[in-house]
Amino acid sequence: MDRKDEKSEAKGKGGNKPFQSDKPEGFLQVERTLNVHLLPKTVKRRVYALKRLQLQSANIEAKFYEEVHELERKYAGLYQPIFDKRRDVVAGAVEPTDEECEWQSDREEEDLAEDLQKKAALEEKQADPAGAEAPRGVPEFWLTIFKRVDMLAEMLQDHDEPILKHLQDITVKFSEPGQPMSFTLEFFFEPNSYFSNTVLTKVYKMKSEPDAEDPFSFEGPEIIDCEGCKIDWHKGKDVTVRLIKKKQKHKGRGTVRTVTKELPQDSFFNFFNPVKASPEGMDVDLDFTLTTDFEIGHFFRERVIPRAVLYFTGEALEDDDSYDEEDLEEGEEEDLDDEGEEEDEGDFDPKKDPPPAECKQQ
Amino acid sequence: MDRKDEKSEAKGKGGNKPFQSDKPEGFLQVERTLNVHLLPKTVKRRVYALKRLQLQSANIEAKFYEEVHELERKYAGLYQPIFDKRRDVVAGAVEPTDEECEWQSDREEEDLAEDLQKKAALEEKQADPAGAEAPRGVPEFWLTIFKRVDMLAEMLQDHDEPILKHLQDITVKFSEPGQPMSFTLEFFFEPNSYFSNTVLTKVYKMKSEPDAEDPFSFEGPEIIDCEGCKIDWHKGKDVTVRLIKKKQKHKGRGTVRTVTKELPQDSFFNFFNPVKASPEGMDVDLDFTLTTDFEIGHFFRERVIPRAVLYFTGEALEDDDSYDEEDLEEGEEEDLDDEGEEEDEGDFDPKKDPPPAECKQQ
Repeated sequence: MDRKDEKSEAKGKGGNKPFQSDKPEGFLQVERTLNVHLLPKTVKRRVYALKRLQLQSANIEAKFYEEVHELERKYAGLYQPIFDKRRDVVAGAVEPTDEECEWQSDREEEDLAEDLQKKAALEEKQADPAGAEAPRGVPEFWLTIFKRVDMLAEMLQDHDEPILKHLQDITVKFSEPGQPMSFTLEFFFEPNSYFSNTVLTKVYKMKSEPDAEDPFSFEGPEIIDCEGCKIDWHKGKDVTVRLIKKKQKHKGRGTVRTVTKELPQDSFFNFFNPVKASPEGMDVDLDFTLTTDFEIGHFFRERVIPRAVLYFTGEALEDDDSYDEEDLEEGEEEDLDDEGEEEDEGDFDPKKDPPPAECKQQ
Repeated sequence: MDRKDEKSEAKGKGGNKPFQSDKPEGFLQVERTLNVHLLPKTVKRRVYALKRLQLQSANIEAKFYEEVHELERKYAGLYQPIFDKRRDVVAGAVEPTDEECEWQSDREEEDLAEDLQKKAALEEKQADPAGAEAPRGVPEFWLTIFKRVDMLAEMLQDHDEPILKHLQDITVKFSEPGQPMSFTLEFFFEPNSYFSNTVLTKVYKMKSEPDAEDPFSFEGPEIIDCEGCKIDWHKGKDVTVRLIKKKQKHKGRGTVRTVTKELPQDSFFNFFNPVKASPEGMDVDLDFTLTTDFEIGHFFRERVIPRAVLYFTGEALEDDDSYDEEDLEEGEEEDLDDEGEEEDEGDFDPKKDPPPAECKQQ
């Protein structure tokens, strides 16, 4: 899955001066990096002219991305009614009509082995005995997605799960025109016993112009910073900390008292309390943490929010290089094959054109 | 370089019914693929309703990409004057003014070790003794790029190089509005002794709507086919074939005559004579060949054409996981570090947003 457009190998040194070589063989020792200074002055200045032209391209490109961003805002509006309907079906606020539930190319049906069918029938009886205590909407829709997607599952702690059962929707909001480019992830919760917020937010700020220092590295909008939000935990419900009791001895009197201290604890909800990005002198760990955080934000925006149901059913989960065929049951193998057809955003596939954050609303 | 959004591992089988489980622990055995049939009927039909909504999204997305394509056509027009200027400077048709050649942040200057400077001075004397036989434009600009980019260097044969010295420009042309989505690579050659064509073309046809069979795999426009062009080789100059002499004995008379046969031969110019894509029953080799061909076409369009000078100087060549630091000279190491900042299109980096073919003109 790590196909690359090209590989750069460090070869012998020395400038490449193709125009001085006559024999094709001469070219086989071409350098990876041309030392522009080994070019004749006349040629060197022309190459600088070409680099100035390249700068002009980079600036036009920045404008292009601004327009794509606007296009994306426009389409966000077109998708919204669909996402709203999804939210209502998931929450059980609306019951879809039979027509809305028709599923023609019912692949699952075909794949379903007979014994599984029997099993299913049995399970169903257990599930709703005479329809009693029938589940509302699609229970634990988002929690299930968190468990499916490894990137999210890695953040998920046991103590997060009962809280995420109350997660009812995740949306993305784009910055207004004229504002600095950014997007905001919004996590909507039903009233619950853990915190009083109805929505938790995470803002990702983006930079969409070439860097003055290194204009040629510009490849489109880039996440440069993020900001979480304060969670108003109910007393003793904050899962991002754990309480430890500590004995303290009074110097003078020697009496001993017990105090309670808060220590940080792993939790998905630390996602809303991110380390701040500092442009200069960022240490490696912090840089790694931020990269991961940006990756997660990007993934929510690009993949999870637009195609949540496919992560719920597993259809959007990609095939993995490292999965072991021996481990598979027939049924699963078929499933994984289906998933294999999904594109991996991390994999460069020239036949697909995975779009940038600024250019996608799927 | 193969960071992935998520990994799918084949876990134990059996449907995941989170809504029936009360304890968080229950969720740790979540399935990668939910067997929708193990959901209660009421929930199952809601999930189908969500999948129908997902189909609506995919269709809106297809419209989005059509608009991005239009945006890209618009920007192609904005880039054209820059590319034309590049072509003229490379060919030596125009001599840039001193102002056009000013290069402020002259990184190379800083990196240049003293001895290299001396070397450069020396080389220059050799290069143009009193400016005699001064090179026109930027000699072998495109050939040098072919040698730098491994993906292209792999196709390049010794016998191709003298021909590619005559390559003067590579451009991309987009399909007209209303036409099926495609892009055409155009390779412009100065008059030469090898073939009479002044331009060689390669058309890449794209599909930009969800596949009826597998709509959820839609991720944007996809290259589905390509078509090369006939090269009118001058007699005996076709480097895509080699001639072998063969003795033939006449049955009756027993006289022996020598005939010449053409056998195919490796050459970059086979790029213009591609195997055709056949939707059904494509054998693995053919599929591989096509994938590679699409990859190369995409790479010309997305990377080489928009930023040719950076491949000429080496600045656009990416750092490679597998390169061996021990091999590096100081100067080169700095160069490679610079390249390291370049994004690898094949590497998912959430902080960057590498755009899709339909969404990029850099």
